Amino acid sequence: MTRKLNVAVIGYGYWGPNLARNVELSEEFELVCICDFSKATLKKASTNHANVKLVTSIEDALKLEHLDAIIIATPASSHFALGMKALKKNKHVLIEKPLAQTSRECRLLIKEAQFRNLVLMVDHTFAYTGAVRKMNDLAKTSLGDLLYYDSVRINLGLFQRDVNVMWDLAVHDLSILDLVTGFTPKAVSATGLAHVDGYPTNTAYLTLYYENSFIAHIHCSWMAPVKIRQTLLGGSNRMIVYDDLEPTEKIKVYDKGILLNPTDEEKYDMRVDYRTADMYSPKLNSVEALAMLIQEFAECVSSNRKPITDANSGFRVVSILEAADISLSKHGEPVPVVDI
Amino acid sequence: MTRKLNVAVIGYGYWGPNLARNVELSEEFELVCICDFSKATLKKASTNHANVKLVTSIEDALKLEHLDAIIIATPASSHFALGMKALKKNKHVLIEKPLAQTSRECRLLIKEAQFRNLVLMVDHTFAYTGAVRKMNDLAKTSLGDLLYYDSVRINLGLFQRDVNVMWDLAVHDLSILDLVTGFTPKAVSATGLAHVDGYPTNTAYLTLYYENSFIAHIHCSWMAPVKIRQTLLGGSNRMIVYDDLEPTEKIKVYDKGILLNPTDEEKYDMRVDYRTADMYSPKLNSVEALAMLIQEFAECVSSNRKPITDANSGFRVVSILEAADISLSKHGEPVPVVDI
Amino acid sequence: MTRKLNVAVIGYGYWGPNLARNVELSEEFELVCICDFSKATLKKASTNHANVKLVTSIEDALKLEHLDAIIIATPASSHFALGMKALKKNKHVLIEKPLAQTSRECRLLIKEAQFRNLVLMVDHTFAYTGAVRKMNDLAKTSLGDLLYYDSVRINLGLFQRDVNVMWDLAVHDLSILDLVTGFTPKAVSATGLAHVDGYPTNTAYLTLYYENSFIAHIHCSWMAPVKIRQTLLGGSNRMIVYDDLEPTEKIKVYDKGILLNPTDEEKYDMRVDYRTADMYSPKLNSVEALAMLIQEFAECVSSNRKPITDANSGFRVVSILEAADISLSKHGEPVPVVDI
Amino acid sequence: MTRKLNVAVIGYGYWGPNLARNVELSEEFELVCICDFSKATLKKASTNHANVKLVTSIEDALKLEHLDAIIIATPASSHFALGMKALKKNKHVLIEKPLAQTSRECRLLIKEAQFRNLVLMVDHTFAYTGAVRKMNDLAKTSLGDLLYYDSVRINLGLFQRDVNVMWDLAVHDLSILDLVTGFTPKAVSATGLAHVDGYPTNTAYLTLYYENSFIAHIHCSWMAPVKIRQTLLGGSNRMIVYDDLEPTEKIKVYDKGILLNPTDEEKYDMRVDYRTADMYSPKLNSVEALAMLIQEFAECVSSNRKPITDANSGFRVVSILEAADISLSKHGEPVPVVDI
Repeated sequence: MTRKLNVAVIGYGYWGPNLARNVELSEEFELVCICDFSKATLKKASTNHANVKLVTSIEDALKLEHLDAIIIATPASSHFALGMKALKKNKHVLIEKPLAQTSRECRLLIKEAQFRNLVLMVDHTFAYTGAVRKMNDLAKTSLGDLLYYDSVRINLGLFQRDVNVMWDLAVHDLSILDLVTGFTPKAVSATGLAHVDGYPTNTAYLTLYYENSFIAHIHCSWMAPVKIRQTLLGGSNRMIVYDDLEPTEKIKVYDKGILLNPTDEEKYDMRVDYRTADMYSPKLNSVEALAMLIQEFAECVSSNRKPITDANSGFRVVSILEAADISLSKHGEPVPVVDI
Repeated sequence: MTRKLNVAVIGYGYWGPNLARNVELSEEFELVCICDFSKATLKKASTNHANVKLVTSIEDALKLEHLDAIIIATPASSHFALGMKALKKNKHVLIEKPLAQTSRECRLLIKEAQFRNLVLMVDHTFAYTGAVRKMNDLAKTSLGDLLYYDSVRINLGLFQRDVNVMWDLAVHDLSILDLVTGFTPKAVSATGLAHVDGYPTNTAYLTLYYENSFIAHIHCSWMAPVKIRQTLLGGSNRMIVYDDLEPTEKIKVYDKGILLNPTDEEKYDMRVDYRTADMYSPKLNSVEALAMLIQEFAECVSSNRKPITDANSGFRVVSILEAADISLSKHGEPVPVVDI
Repeated sequence: MTRKLNVAVIGYGYWGPNLARNVELSEEFELVCICDFSKATLKKASTNHANVKLVTSIEDALKLEHLDAIIIATPASSHFALGMKALKKNKHVLIEKPLAQTSRECRLLIKEAQFRNLVLMVDHTFAYTGAVRKMNDLAKTSLGDLLYYDSVRINLGLFQRDVNVMWDLAVHDLSILDLVTGFTPKAVSATGLAHVDGYPTNTAYLTLYYENSFIAHIHCSWMAPVKIRQTLLGGSNRMIVYDDLEPTEKIKVYDKGILLNPTDEEKYDMRVDYRTADMYSPKLNSVEALAMLIQEFAECVSSNRKPITDANSGFRVVSILEAADISLSKHGEPVPVVDI
Repeated sequence: MTRKLNVAVIGYGYWGPNLARNVELSEEFELVCICDFSKATLKKASTNHANVKLVTSIEDALKLEHLDAIIIATPASSHFALGMKALKKNKHVLIEKPLAQTSRECRLLIKEAQFRNLVLMVDHTFAYTGAVRKMNDLAKTSLGDLLYYDSVRINLGLFQRDVNVMWDLAVHDLSILDLVTGFTPKAVSATGLAHVDGYPTNTAYLTLYYENSFIAHIHCSWMAPVKIRQTLLGGSNRMIVYDDLEPTEKIKVYDKGILLNPTDEEKYDMRVDYRTADMYSPKLNSVEALAMLIQEFAECVSSNRKPITDANSGFRVVSILEAADISLSKHGEPVPVVDI
């Protein structure tokens, strides 16, 4: 490849600057344009990216010559419309999570990209972290049969008006689950708390049902007094504890140690010394997740292959959230997850 | 009261020795008899309690003159039969949790005790710990409206054959919830994992539904690679984190700090510095819970008052577990909790 | 003041970019010049600061018209020469810690600044963190008589050739001590480990002796397998634990709880329940330390007052390190600390 | 061996009951006598040990026929006199730490035991814990050259009148060091705080000097607001973190990861991601340390071999404490440690 791929970043609010910075650091990409409807935001962009064209509409961005790809980092409500515009102008597209607001929108984007043979990728950032990639490796090699996934992703504050806590926090777990297990849930049950008037559900519990005996459970909340990011992945041979707040030992791998039908004496011993096996904490790749993500986008555009977090994974995650919203309104009644 | 109250302990397996030891340390009680069908177990009892009568059947224990009270620490399957025998001989009764195996059995025990005007108490040990009593105080004074209860009570191993993980672990949370909130759930939804042949559910998630917007959730498991005992109690003014594995700072109280509809900048700030208020960790009473429990039993027998953990609380906890068992078999369908 | 104060940053390696960024964010300062002898480094500076003059020698920087102040963020070996040049051109000066390499150099810089009535400030960054400022407040108000300071500042790796571990890590504790206690040590004893050929001491223990009974001890190391940043400050009324790695609860304040001449029973109780008082963790100011530092520099230049971390505090810290180096070479023999 | 070895326990205060209990649980020993000058204490002993002779003087204990061994758990001031009496009556002797109050007393006890070919053992309990035994194994097999030992053993309260904090807490580290390194220090430097009138030093720092470059440092205190029990053992290949307060992962082993002469970029990376290797936490033997100790005593008496914690280790530990006391009174001046 002789020339770099030209990229425009649409949306320079909370997440856009991180994506733009990583595009600039990439060997394969040239950041040629930043688009935001806010002049003040564009001014901020100009101090960080001196030689980049600044525009206030995606139409202006799409008029640029030799533009290869578009990265969309706007609010979720505009993902579908902006993504569709870019695809229709034959641009490869990377969209911040969630891919779109409904599974139907996702399906339309996927069809458009397939029809035009374009790369359509979703920014499921966690899939590119060292911790999740290690968890994925271990799930494929040494955990044995996967038995359960349990995640607690809670903290205080940040009540958003436009999305509930599942679309803000559980979305991360759904994308991790999608990558690491490779399983697709059949139904989801969700319950939650929404006690602040005018604001959506701030605490939710999701249970995902699968064809096999595997179960997944996610607890997400903006109402917890402490921040917790802890995920358990249990296999028949080994189990993982993934604590994203640990500075270095994010992933701990435990040997299996179940004791069937304990005697009174064993019960007593277990109270005193309840662990029965070795633990190890592997070194993780520390390359920034967003750098890996941008690299994956570049490689897929260059070689026209499917990204790890392709639009289908974006569809699956949105489908589950969609079903969870319905279940939430029905106080936990299990709701089927639609297939693609 | 001139003479001490005479007590017999029935069952000297895992929990009985702890109860017997605390009876001996009590000022009000005299431990006069230990009953166990195993001769080997009785031999162990004799080395710990030199001057206590040892018998192999409750009938022999109940024949003793001047016996005031019976403490039952046998497997749950015998609680009803043994408790009923003791009540019918006009003994005050303390039964290890759960009070009985069904809500119907609980109801029969309660009626018998009421009819005879006897104390019938259940050993919900956690209700007597310094941490839970402090949590109870705070719930009644400074948390504001209670919003949610969330508990994770998981560890590795100890697969029991006769009871599932909810009857082993969630029972503790249900008794804490009963004490601290004073609310009675209307329905319960439970899901779980039971992947080991011949063994009951080893991992379960319970959601409790109430008349008000309060929600309670319990995650209990014998299949977790790490031991966690962490409970959140959220109120409209303050929130509590109760970590039972912390050696000293078991209870932490956080001021409220919700931020509604954050700007991009606030979102960024919260990522860096997500807590927004003071925390304090109150000193806890360190008297052993079982000493408090035995003291409560003694006081109630002496003054004929209702215990904090009376048989009705035992009934409520068993009713929820009963409903949860049905829900578990129906993959999480909410099941009503019966009233007394 | 109508116009902003013009500032040049000298040195754009590891720390300079942080200082430059905070100068740009300041209301009082205008970043007009960045100086670094490396062209590659200057290129990096140009992408971050588009409209700033780039020069390769301090002489070129000092030739700029209307330059008010100089910030020096070069290796310690050049602090004295560069600082002196700037002062002689009547610029206010802020120097990265340590102020200089010897107490004599510090003294000469101080004299020059005094003679010319210029602000001379040292970047003891920790003094401007929310945690240390809170610790300082508490030390002045509620701890009672200060009894001891104990700090562990250890981690793995980063063996530097030009400075030993005391000049890299203990320097932070010395600056915190200087601020928080207001005491000046009379002598210092230092021992350490230097087992890697060609590299200076990588692990050191410093004990500081004072006129009163107060003691201070610092353990710093590049050879620890884990990162620890934990400081204890003990007073006659209260004690502080400051853990800089805690994301939110960096400062914990404990009530006093000493038990004199315990009985066997109390000894036993203490093993089980060793804490005897309440703890609280105050909310900390989360403004970035470097923003506070730059603000302090601006205010001192504008109003010609002494900075919190004035050159005298820089002198005191260097004097202690100087004495510690001698003590280290004498296997811990106490060495007097020179006065200004 | 056809009959069990008969043992008397002298002193039934704080530690004696633990020793007596483990003697009773031992297959090799028969607990035949408990001695304490307090009648109230003996009464307590009688409820725990029904068929054991109770006496109020060691002379009465030593008159018993077929008595093989004596275990002394009295205050340190009586260790020498009681130990000597027992040896002179040809009893094997186990003495609670410290072996005696001076190195001279230790030497006399050792000579007497040697002369009579008796087992003389000191209760350095930590040497028998699963954690320290694992640390010892690792030190001998995989750490490489030992570089340093650093221990923090601090907590609040329990000011004793008769011994300073080094004899109460540092003694444990000295016994661990003695076992794990096999090195004997040449000199010791100790500094400390003794601010409460009528009470000895409550906070102390010990540095131990060796013939090789190895250094050891111990921080012990009764004046810390938090309890810490953390020991680092650094080797040229691997390093250990031993945290005795961790319920299960007491021992963590880290691969070496030193980075010599880092670049600015590496410095930055290390701040973000400072660990550079795998960690593992081995499963520990969970047999109670005192059971192992009593077993060791029984085996040594039976086979007449030297215990792991023989009287010589008791001598070495006392010699270091003796030298540390002198150093403490001389404000940290290094004091030679006497040889046996």
